[in-house]
Amino acid sequence: MLQCASMTLSNDPAGNEPFPNTGTLMMIGGAEDKVGNRTILRRFVELAGGDQSRIAIIATASEIYEIVSQIYERIFTELGAADVHVLKLYSREDCCDENILAPISESSGLFLTGGNQLKLMTILGGTPAATRIRRAYRAGCSVAGTSAGASAVCQHMMAYGMSGITPRKAMMHFAPGLGLINRLLVDQHFGARGRTGRLVTALAHNPYLLGVGLDEDTAIEVDSKRMMSVIGRGSVTIVDGTEMSYNDIYRISDHAPLSIHNMRFHLLTHGYQFDINRRSPVVPATPPLPFEAGLYAEGEGI
Amino acid sequence: MLQCASMTLSNDPAGNEPFPNTGTLMMIGGAEDKVGNRTILRRFVELAGGDQSRIAIIATASEIYEIVSQIYERIFTELGAADVHVLKLYSREDCCDENILAPISESSGLFLTGGNQLKLMTILGGTPAATRIRRAYRAGCSVAGTSAGASAVCQHMMAYGMSGITPRKAMMHFAPGLGLINRLLVDQHFGARGRTGRLVTALAHNPYLLGVGLDEDTAIEVDSKRMMSVIGRGSVTIVDGTEMSYNDIYRISDHAPLSIHNMRFHLLTHGYQFDINRRSPVVPATPPLPFEAGLYAEGEGI
Repeated sequence: MLQCASMTLSNDPAGNEPFPNTGTLMMIGGAEDKVGNRTILRRFVELAGGDQSRIAIIATASEIYEIVSQIYERIFTELGAADVHVLKLYSREDCCDENILAPISESSGLFLTGGNQLKLMTILGGTPAATRIRRAYRAGCSVAGTSAGASAVCQHMMAYGMSGITPRKAMMHFAPGLGLINRLLVDQHFGARGRTGRLVTALAHNPYLLGVGLDEDTAIEVDSKRMMSVIGRGSVTIVDGTEMSYNDIYRISDHAPLSIHNMRFHLLTHGYQFDINRRSPVVPATPPLPFEAGLYAEGEGI
Repeated sequence: MLQCASMTLSNDPAGNEPFPNTGTLMMIGGAEDKVGNRTILRRFVELAGGDQSRIAIIATASEIYEIVSQIYERIFTELGAADVHVLKLYSREDCCDENILAPISESSGLFLTGGNQLKLMTILGGTPAATRIRRAYRAGCSVAGTSAGASAVCQHMMAYGMSGITPRKAMMHFAPGLGLINRLLVDQHFGARGRTGRLVTALAHNPYLLGVGLDEDTAIEVDSKRMMSVIGRGSVTIVDGTEMSYNDIYRISDHAPLSIHNMRFHLLTHGYQFDINRRSPVVPATPPLPFEAGLYAEGEGI
């Protein structure tokens, strides 16, 4: 086993990040509850400022962006946001149009819908829209992405890939994402679509990455100190390659299975936390309550 | 992270096992090649003594045991075994019948077919047949099991369970197996059927176990020193819970997802080794050749 203390602390554990006032970043594994208690989306509105929040929706990833925009517009309005705006970023021209971009700087919450993360980045990548999103986030705006949106907020994203649990070299493809966070590599619909293989394959390329597999209706929040908290119904799989002592990805053929020694993983559910800087799960003083436990008794349900 | 040196050496690393002369144990992930080069089955014949081998087939796990027996009988004969015998252990009465059992003690190789491991154990469990199989193995007879047979040779087996990669408390059920090896818990058809969830769930019950997920047409050999070697087309996933520092399985509801901190895993492919006593993969001096590389060039193919 590889033991190298500095590796586990390669970010500054004191939290002196280059942008210490970033908003909260929320990554959702897709298929979040939109008709029940909507706990995850409700939490996003809260992070964005609750009844003071000004939320902008970016549905660029979707092929049916008008319908998807309307759905979230209605939900965030129902959940009490002060203002909800749809950013019509449907072409690279749109992404350079000052009239369309202006509301980004006014927003306290940005929401990226699902769809196809490669579509999203082919339209946003390198445009003033992407720059504005990064600036807003660094200035304190909370940003959430679901499904494709969750993958795309990272510096490195899974562009596309195959399902399956046996890691093989060519089963996933990287692409640059929006760059709001550098260390995480996020995959979504994780349990439902059997995506462990491609997450492990991704990490094998560079064990610096911390792989995060999000189940549906399950999300992580990452605060400005890089503390991650889980919210939702399913589980979050975290794969850490820091101690990887052997890995043959650089010399095998495209569809051959990988050999990898010493990967570490964690499974986290609702209420659990993970310290990204220390690459370590937080052992809770008291076990968190199950997801939505006691919700209806408290009269908070729909 | 839990650090406890004695845990990683809880068996005697010097190899002073209570039965130092056991045969080789081969566990196959199911669907092994039966018509091509038959590398895995060929290797079993070699382990059993090649042209000196006396192989007995146990098809009790299968509902179509006569057909399955015939298939393996033909293959082992074609692969050069000196003698191939079908053990007609189809009821608990059969498993007490001295005439049927006698060939077990004469065998140099025992082969357990696929089917249903619970069927196999409900018929063999607690009978003289099971005792004879254990004695033969301890006296040097090589034993192979494929699919259900691979699960059943262990002390603790996965009796049945659900597919899926999110571990949940009630997604698998233990049952006692044949008891040829104590520490391994084996699951098969691993990649094809997406069975990571139930293997992790199993380990959460007692991290003493070392979880082994076998892909189809892929096998492990375990020698008398508890050194494991991989042979075949797919990969072998090894899950080690020794360092597990948090695990909530004892207090969550049946279908809730688990929270687990600090599990370790390894992926091994053809030619790689794992030291079970030390719970550690062996880093090869030179990387093994890919599965069946150069086979046909050497004129060894069919």
